[in-house]
Amino acid sequence: MSPRVLRVALVQDRDRGSREANLAAIETAVGQAASAGARLVLLQELHNGPYFCQHESVDEFDRAEPIPGDSTARLSALARAHALVIVGSLFERRAAGLHHNTAVVFDADGSHRGTYRKMHIPDDPGFLEKFYFAPGDLGFTPIDTSVGRLGVLVCWDQWYPEAARLMALAGAELLLYPTAIGWDPADPQSEKDRQLDAWITVQRGHAVANGLPLLAVNRTGFEAAPDSSGRGIRFWGCSFVVGPQGEFLARAGEPEPELLLCDIDLARSETVRRIWPFLRDRRIDAYGDLLRRFRD
Amino acid sequence: MSPRVLRVALVQDRDRGSREANLAAIETAVGQAASAGARLVLLQELHNGPYFCQHESVDEFDRAEPIPGDSTARLSALARAHALVIVGSLFERRAAGLHHNTAVVFDADGSHRGTYRKMHIPDDPGFLEKFYFAPGDLGFTPIDTSVGRLGVLVCWDQWYPEAARLMALAGAELLLYPTAIGWDPADPQSEKDRQLDAWITVQRGHAVANGLPLLAVNRTGFEAAPDSSGRGIRFWGCSFVVGPQGEFLARAGEPEPELLLCDIDLARSETVRRIWPFLRDRRIDAYGDLLRRFRD
Repeated sequence: MSPRVLRVALVQDRDRGSREANLAAIETAVGQAASAGARLVLLQELHNGPYFCQHESVDEFDRAEPIPGDSTARLSALARAHALVIVGSLFERRAAGLHHNTAVVFDADGSHRGTYRKMHIPDDPGFLEKFYFAPGDLGFTPIDTSVGRLGVLVCWDQWYPEAARLMALAGAELLLYPTAIGWDPADPQSEKDRQLDAWITVQRGHAVANGLPLLAVNRTGFEAAPDSSGRGIRFWGCSFVVGPQGEFLARAGEPEPELLLCDIDLARSETVRRIWPFLRDRRIDAYGDLLRRFRD
Repeated sequence: MSPRVLRVALVQDRDRGSREANLAAIETAVGQAASAGARLVLLQELHNGPYFCQHESVDEFDRAEPIPGDSTARLSALARAHALVIVGSLFERRAAGLHHNTAVVFDADGSHRGTYRKMHIPDDPGFLEKFYFAPGDLGFTPIDTSVGRLGVLVCWDQWYPEAARLMALAGAELLLYPTAIGWDPADPQSEKDRQLDAWITVQRGHAVANGLPLLAVNRTGFEAAPDSSGRGIRFWGCSFVVGPQGEFLARAGEPEPELLLCDIDLARSETVRRIWPFLRDRRIDAYGDLLRRFRD
């Protein structure tokens, strides 16, 4: 199998205090990625602002943006200027009272190749997303680009093997996860360690189960709670890239913004799936109850 | 949450050359497990003999056994004698020309509580199981015992998130995998390392995705190829137990037979699922294509 190498860049960053500052930082990072030869740049979840879902406030809807809109125009121009694919993540205003957590993909010519609306929406203390985001209604549909067919999923989706599998079954060549996950500062270190390791492990598991490379980019930095009810979140960074056996190809450090570069050989999936042909043996005749909430 | 601790034992062993020798070794190990306070013993895949699927030979069907039969009677008596639950794994002869790779569960009173026929059947060089085993027809159904509801799956099943999920949706409290997996001695060390790590990782991923503890017991030792077409298999041992965040609770070494003991707090799943309620947010309205071979 001849190698088919794709250089990717993951922009692991902290919130810089304003949409303008965040987009400026992204433009700098994408320029650096392009100079380093990257042909695909993955941005973190909701990169234009803070992770505002720590509380429920109607004022936060002011952050939402239409798609297409100013931000998509800017990301499109950025992709075209550097001739690379960009996967972004926006707080989408679809209509009054109807918003989504939405990934957008721009090809190297600046064209908007597709949109993915986050399908699984969390709601836990500190991550109150059900207030802000309607569950996605575009399904688990990969997006075709000049660098390959991208299985873009977002954050909470990363815990669901179903999401990764559906992308693989639709021919995705890469799984990509913009995320914003971190620690409750009140948790003991042992719990923090388990959470971080679980987050990495379940995604590596998707790579293995589907014989696909996987990219996860995560926010970093501490964001204080917007009101007295919360303790803030320490976003844990630790962005990573794994190959189709779940093997680490690149890992970012935890505490700091980082531009993580990585070469992925897309031909490895073919090799790995020949020795581990999991798709061949799925028992689709016996999976019907996967469509039930619980088998009771 | 009050702890609900279950001590389990995994019998990681090599083939000892005959059914009688293997069963005698199992009887010794189960006695040791009972003395150490274990209430559940998990035996490895096809523990009564060598891993005969390295080649395709009709003579190997002589190894198959009826269920119920001599082996189930012996495992039942062993469970009753030590008042513990035993999960065994047999080459089942169901009818002439119809065989299965079958797990059997005996409760602490010796009663046969249930049977699981391996649903996903591999077929790769060295693991020619499609010749020997018809795919299971009992579905992904957990088995109730006095120590809890057991989600028993077998070897190749371990690569399938669907199998683990269906067991979790049916209320399984533990996932258990008797396995027989090893290295092709001709593979380079880097590939061996990736395979072992992928095997551990994908199963830890099932534990995380479902908030369940998971036990995997694997064969050890080298088994030469029965004919000149193969290179033999070095079974990699490395049996392990993880908790509901995929955290390691116990790990066996690679090269040697070992009785691996572990305490599992079954109440941890309740705690973990409260902070990570993945079952709540599954998009069962959008999972329909999981029942397709491929989305093309």
